[in-house]
Amino acid sequence: MITLAIDAMSGDRGLAATVPAAVDIVRRYAEVKLILVGDLRLIERQLATIGAPPRVQIEPATELVTMDESPAIALRKKKDSSMRVAINLVQTGRAAACISAGNTGALLAVARFVLKTIRGIDRPAICTALPRLNGQTYMLDLGANVGSSPEVLFQFGLMGATLIKCITANSNPSVGLLNIGTEDVKGNETIKTAAKLFKQSQLNYVGFVEADDIYRGDTDLIVCDGFAGNVALKAAEGVAQMISGIIKQQFNRTWLTRSAGLITKPVLNAIKTRLDHRRYNGASLLGLRGCVIKSHGGADAFGFGWAIEVALREAQNNVVQQIECALDKNTYG
Amino acid sequence: MITLAIDAMSGDRGLAATVPAAVDIVRRYAEVKLILVGDLRLIERQLATIGAPPRVQIEPATELVTMDESPAIALRKKKDSSMRVAINLVQTGRAAACISAGNTGALLAVARFVLKTIRGIDRPAICTALPRLNGQTYMLDLGANVGSSPEVLFQFGLMGATLIKCITANSNPSVGLLNIGTEDVKGNETIKTAAKLFKQSQLNYVGFVEADDIYRGDTDLIVCDGFAGNVALKAAEGVAQMISGIIKQQFNRTWLTRSAGLITKPVLNAIKTRLDHRRYNGASLLGLRGCVIKSHGGADAFGFGWAIEVALREAQNNVVQQIECALDKNTYG
Repeated sequence: MITLAIDAMSGDRGLAATVPAAVDIVRRYAEVKLILVGDLRLIERQLATIGAPPRVQIEPATELVTMDESPAIALRKKKDSSMRVAINLVQTGRAAACISAGNTGALLAVARFVLKTIRGIDRPAICTALPRLNGQTYMLDLGANVGSSPEVLFQFGLMGATLIKCITANSNPSVGLLNIGTEDVKGNETIKTAAKLFKQSQLNYVGFVEADDIYRGDTDLIVCDGFAGNVALKAAEGVAQMISGIIKQQFNRTWLTRSAGLITKPVLNAIKTRLDHRRYNGASLLGLRGCVIKSHGGADAFGFGWAIEVALREAQNNVVQQIECALDKNTYG
Repeated sequence: MITLAIDAMSGDRGLAATVPAAVDIVRRYAEVKLILVGDLRLIERQLATIGAPPRVQIEPATELVTMDESPAIALRKKKDSSMRVAINLVQTGRAAACISAGNTGALLAVARFVLKTIRGIDRPAICTALPRLNGQTYMLDLGANVGSSPEVLFQFGLMGATLIKCITANSNPSVGLLNIGTEDVKGNETIKTAAKLFKQSQLNYVGFVEADDIYRGDTDLIVCDGFAGNVALKAAEGVAQMISGIIKQQFNRTWLTRSAGLITKPVLNAIKTRLDHRRYNGASLLGLRGCVIKSHGGADAFGFGWAIEVALREAQNNVVQQIECALDKNTYG
């Protein structure tokens, strides 16, 4: 049996997303137990509307970290927040992982304070899978850090490669360093020094990759500083929304184009499904002594469910312990 | 009459793209004269196949900077390259601007050496317009620099805003600084210090913007370091190609989806036209004492034509002189 803790109050939609997603997961996975953390009465009421299944517990928490609250406030003033209590459950071993759609800065700060980082890791990083035409690319850091040293970038690489080995069938993931050109002379000193560390390591390092490789290349893991990672992710989100806006605009122009839209609806829906960002929800906070998954703040129940699945897969495969092992084996510098 | 110099040998397609594009421009604009720079006999032969119009001259150059040549080699060993000679024509005043599809590093190095930077500008930057749902966003730097100081970022802002004022109807462009969050506390020290310079200036500064704003926001100019700019641009390119790949895949699945594709062909073509990156070809190397436009290396004649149009618009509107004026008026720090 695997127990997961859910910050039930988190995200823009709160209980309306987290509770249905949780109930759906326990119905689908007989080996999963869930602890919903938050306002006891509100959670009970939400459970009542959809029917409370077995293997769902409630853990009360009286406070809430809001989406725009500073990490410092979340950390110092909200010791009984649903976010903090959910992370505590991981720390005490009552849960194997926790999932929150709360604000990223607060989640990082609280998780780091409560769980601490793994020995050999300077800073946790945010890692997620991104879609490509055939398959997916993992990428980190997506915004936990700005300005990472070569050593920290190498730690990101070790953690990301270990994650892929643990939760996918790929036992030798290729690893690239994000740069603005593929030649050795390109980029700043940090990235050039990092490249040396990667070359000396046992990772399957393939060299520098450019940002277009994230979505159309074949590198399994792309390592970068949180600033670049966040910029790449957001730019891609923006362009995807622009394209979907243009598609809608063009199909809505006249009655003729609207009819064409109706005829191709099944194809357009298939395209929409392939591009559904909700299916890529659930980013891992790697480098902590415990498994913490961050859901997109705006996720609905369907999206939040994917984030719970990520947590489940990582807990089942002991990702945290595997990262500790990988760090013990690897030396660099 | 405005004279433009064209590096006719440049780009992956060379004369097959540059010469037809040039001929098309002189046919469309009675006030334009073009100087094609490169191998005399090859250019003459190419002109003969499509009919040489008046107002097209040839300037011989015996060497060629290849696409993978280092800036140092291009600068020191290829003094009679078509790239160098085209830039020389701008330096001596025989041409008001030049256009090259040659390699970016070499073009930057040679242009900077021959033309020098404008007084008050530390480093030239690459600026281009990018599409959004309604309109376009200008962005710089897109990869000329890695690691820019706050002062340099502010110079980028001044140059970009001046460019927009000169060549569009927008007399008060909004300016944003690319960051990984919109709150004041986000980002590294460089960007926070840069924000102060922007706030103190007369620019229409709107604060930090995130990378999704490039394609779906309403900021007219987004300023960033060349590393982040290049990552944003390439990530967007990658995702756009992935989406177009998925659309093709889905329409090609069965005879039913293929028929649906045929019926919606006009709509799909309209979407394709809206997203045609060739219509956004032509990036400005801002900060030089002369107008230099970089075309995408892979551009065809249609795409290269757009880059010539950018050069024409900048030359007609004296962008270089206007940037000099803007710098004289603005002080910071």
